[in-house]
Parts: sequence; structure tokens; C-alpha cells
Amino acid sequence: MSMTHPRPIVALSGGVGGAKLSLGLLRTLPADSLTVIVNTADDFTHLGLRISPDVDTTVYTLADIVNPETGWGRRDETWTFMAATGALGGETWFRLGDGDLAMHVERTRRLATGEPLSRITADIARRLSIRANIVPMTDDAVATIVGTTAGDLAFQDYFVRRQCAPRVTSLRFAGAEQAHPATAAAEALGNPELAAVVICPSNPYLSIDPILAIPGMATLLRNCAAPVIAVSPLVGGKAVKGPTAKIMAELDLSISAVEIARHYRGVIDGLVVDAGDRHLAGQFDLPVLFTETMMTTLADRERLAREVTRFAETLAGKRTSPAKSSSE
Amino acid sequence: MSMTHPRPIVALSGGVGGAKLSLGLLRTLPADSLTVIVNTADDFTHLGLRISPDVDTTVYTLADIVNPETGWGRRDETWTFMAATGALGGETWFRLGDGDLAMHVERTRRLATGEPLSRITADIARRLSIRANIVPMTDDAVATIVGTTAGDLAFQDYFVRRQCAPRVTSLRFAGAEQAHPATAAAEALGNPELAAVVICPSNPYLSIDPILAIPGMATLLRNCAAPVIAVSPLVGGKAVKGPTAKIMAELDLSISAVEIARHYRGVIDGLVVDAGDRHLAGQFDLPVLFTETMMTTLADRERLAREVTRFAETLAGKRTSPAKSSSE
Repeated sequence: MSMTHPRPIVALSGGVGGAKLSLGLLRTLPADSLTVIVNTADDFTHLGLRISPDVDTTVYTLADIVNPETGWGRRDETWTFMAATGALGGETWFRLGDGDLAMHVERTRRLATGEPLSRITADIARRLSIRANIVPMTDDAVATIVGTTAGDLAFQDYFVRRQCAPRVTSLRFAGAEQAHPATAAAEALGNPELAAVVICPSNPYLSIDPILAIPGMATLLRNCAAPVIAVSPLVGGKAVKGPTAKIMAELDLSISAVEIARHYRGVIDGLVVDAGDRHLAGQFDLPVLFTETMMTTLADRERLAREVTRFAETLAGKRTSPAKSSSE
Repeated sequence: MSMTHPRPIVALSGGVGGAKLSLGLLRTLPADSLTVIVNTADDFTHLGLRISPDVDTTVYTLADIVNPETGWGRRDETWTFMAATGALGGETWFRLGDGDLAMHVERTRRLATGEPLSRITADIARRLSIRANIVPMTDDAVATIVGTTAGDLAFQDYFVRRQCAPRVTSLRFAGAEQAHPATAAAEALGNPELAAVVICPSNPYLSIDPILAIPGMATLLRNCAAPVIAVSPLVGGKAVKGPTAKIMAELDLSISAVEIARHYRGVIDGLVVDAGDRHLAGQFDLPVLFTETMMTTLADRERLAREVTRFAETLAGKRTSPAKSSSE
């Protein structure tokens, strides 16, 4: 066991679902042993403010100040700013709470001084007493462009303004090819003591693929010392939250954990699949752990986190899995 | 009387006291006949946001959404942003309410697109259904520098952060020499139908002098068709609010309406002085109206506004007063 000399774990995460598992990991691992590498391809500038939705959801969740109703934004939030903005003729389709706004104003101000997002995020996490490293995937600009039958859409236009209604035909991550992993992400993944990399049950297409699209990140994952485990975001052929299943259907993919395994082939060494999908056993070409993956309560998150890290321990010896080596 | 063809009136104003008289004028004059030219030398950038305190106080007051307790900021304000900013390590010495923030965010965003402050302000006033023109004195950058025994201080450093404690030795308005009056200000002052210019009972040294320091503004006032009336901010040798008396003492000036008349010599054609200072009668070298100048209630503001405009009517024939011509 890792009680005497805790070995670090890295999680790759998008927004709400990923943050829930990250919280489970934070609460079940020794302090300061978790690094969460977070998607920033959803980031955008709105009302002149730089907004990093997945970073903020992760920060709020791990600081235990997230709105428990939504899984994003802050608890005990007020909305005076948004009402006043509407009265002044400003845009209100992207809802910014008064407390949430502090994050965007402070980040925008610091970015304007030339400070990188990763350093700002680390400082904010420290001020909020978070005992994990929250690392934006990159300090470079990467932006998800959603190709749809209604044309190319900026991510938040697709996701918030149009509520994921347009039919998706393609996804690309502008800037990813030129982007570099944030230094702290590279350090965490390059640590020879690393015990596991956990790909959280975030949307593989919208939240995890942008991280993997950074060439340096893909290399780091391929070369890292630890097994890479993904948690499937599907339960019984449906997504727990968000447009994962809808996008899979629109991209003509079968809505199944088997497809998730195929999607992550060459990246992962093992897959965690919901117990409700146990009938799929035998259709995977890599180790699979079946367990409850729904994270309704805090206890659910902690239990899943423990199971995932234990599963990683069982795979530590099989570091070069057929699936993973096949991409090399 | 002006009921059949209303003639326009211009007010020059700083913050709280000036906004109160401006509201009185707005409520007693025909709609759209008032233009308030507002000091912008207190404007500054804070938390990355462009803040125009006197413009905002004027907007909130004339829109009837000002906080009645303070005379600035918004009524029914919340403070969630400020609390969250403090938790993130941001600066909290300048208090920004959640609703107030909408003004700063929207203004900052629009300024960044190249839109001038005067147009943004006019649009916001229109959206808030204000039937007066609120015009920043200039779209150029002017900044009050307060020379003190503790060194030169930016205005808000002196006024808010240090609560006007340092002893003032000088005042200068950086950029004023190069600044041009906002177009709408020039148009209002150049209107041959103008009935009066009212210098509100704002701080002459901090709020009105920056307006007068713009060379084009001084020329417009000298050449305008209407009498220029100032309302003294002193009552019984004291300032109603703010550091006017303290600054006058520090600058070795006698704290008296006679000194206010001397200060505005060459600019004004008449002075309105509080009835409590009636003992000063005979010490002025220009027409003086003694009346109650305290504006506690809305009725006070309306009554003073009516008296000031009536006083201006009596001076319309004496346009070239000795005091005014003496500077030419």
C-alpha cells in the first residue's frame, strides 16, 4: 500500500463528471499527491473576460464550494451582475454568477499582466486550500471548433447558446498541434513514481480529446511510468450527463463502452465500465473493471476513486498492453 | 417662461453633490433639455476594469437606482463578487458591488472595441430611460494627481484608499492640456439657445477644476450664450460632504463662499450661496443668490434647481459681468 511513501496520481478531466471523480481521488489519496490536468479548449472570452469553464468547475468542486444542484458554478451564488448587465444591454446567454465573476475578473487581470493560466490557477487553488494540483492542459490557446450541419461553431456557441442542438459532423481543436503541455502537466506525467493516470468519465470527444490532441501530451502519456485507466462515461448505453451519446450517434458510432475502449486504443491500459454494462464482457481487447460508476453521493465518488486506483495497481505490471503498444 | 419652447441647460458636475442638483434639474426641466457634463479625471483602471466614478454616480442618480444611504453605488446591491475576490487574493479596498460591476465590465468591454466613453455613456443612459444627456467631459485620458506631503498620489489612492488623510499641497490634471471636450459637451455649450450653465456644488478643486482645465472647455464656457452660475459647496464655512473644506485649509484658502467666488472668477456670472452665509453679503463682486443649498430630500433638490434656473434668467441680460470679462 501507498501509506508510507504516497505515489502520485494524475487525472485528465473535463468539467462536471471529471471533477466529481477528481474529488473522490482527492479525498481518498494522501494530500498533494493528485494532479488534475484539465481541458482548456472550452475557454473563451465573454464580456471581455477570459473564462475557463472546466478549470473553474474543477477548482470549485475540489474547494468544496461548487453548486451541488448543477455541479458547476458556486454554491450560495447571487445573480445581481447578470440582471444589471441585461438592463445595460449586455449579453446574458452565458450566465455568470456574482461570486463566479471574481474568478473571471481576477484571471483576466492577471493574464493581461502576462502571467500564464497555469500559475494563476495554481495560486488560486492554493488560496482556496485545495491540496491537489489543478493544471490547465496548456498555457497556449486551443479552441474546440464544433463542425455541425449549421456550420462551424465556437464551443460555447454550440454548448451553451445552442444547447448542443445542432447535429455534429466533426470536431477539431484549433491550435492544439502548436500547443505545449503546461510545465506542471509535463512534470506530473514524467514523474517516475507515478502510480496511475486516470482519464475521468468526461466527454471523450469534447473534453478529453483536446488534451490528447496536444502532441506533447500524447507523447507524455505514451512514455509515462504508470498504467493509464479510463472510466467510461456511458451507463447502460446512455451518457450520465451532457451530449456524449448524442454526439456518438451523430458521428455514427455505437453508443457503447466498447466504442469508448476503441476510441482510447493506444492510450489506455485498462477501462472501468459501469456494472450495468457487464453484458459487454468479452468484447474488450484490454483489461476491464466492471463497477458502479454513477457518482450521486460523495461516498459514490470516494468508492469509485478507490476502485480505480486499486484497478491501476493490478495493471502496474502489464504496463505495455497490446492496445497501448499497438500505437507505437 | 420656457414652457412653449424649452431652452436647454448645461450642468457641470462631479459625484454625489452634483448628481443631487442634476436630479433636481432633470425633474424640474422639460425632458431632454438637460445636459450634465461630468468630471472623468477620477476615472481609473482597477481589477482590469475601467471605472468612471462620477459618471456612474450621475447615471445611477438620474436613473433613480442610486443607493440613497451613500449617494453613490446602486440600491439593493449585493457584495458576493467582493467577498469572492478577497478569497482569491484580489484587491478589495475599492468596493465594487455586484450590480455596479455590470457597468464596469460592459464599459471596459466596449472601450476595448474602440468605442468612446461618451457614446457608451449615452447608450447606457438611454437604456436606463434617463431623459437627460450625461456627457463625460472628454473622451481623452485625464487623471487627477494629488500632490501631498506623502508624495504624489493617484486620485483614488488619495480619496478611497487613504480616505483623504494626506495633506494636499497641489493638484494637477495630467492630460488635461491635450484633452478635447467630448463632442456632445461642445455641442451643448455651443447651442445659441442655451439658457444657463450651472456649476453644481461639487468640490471645486477635485471635481470642477478638471473640467475647466481642458482648454477647449474653458473657451466654450467663455463664449457660451448663457450665464454661468455656480452653487457654492460650502454651508456655514463647512463642506456638506467630502474633503472640500479640508483641502481649502491645506491650500491656505479661507473656507468661505467668498473664496469660492474668487476661485471661479472669470468663469461665472453669478453665485448661489447658502442662506446660512448671508452675513457674507457685500463681500462679493458678482450677483449672489442666498438660499437653502442643503439637499436632503428630493423636494430640496427640486426647489434648489428651480431657484438656480430662475436666478440664471435674471442674469441673462448681464451676460458680460465684470468678473467674467476680467479674465478676457
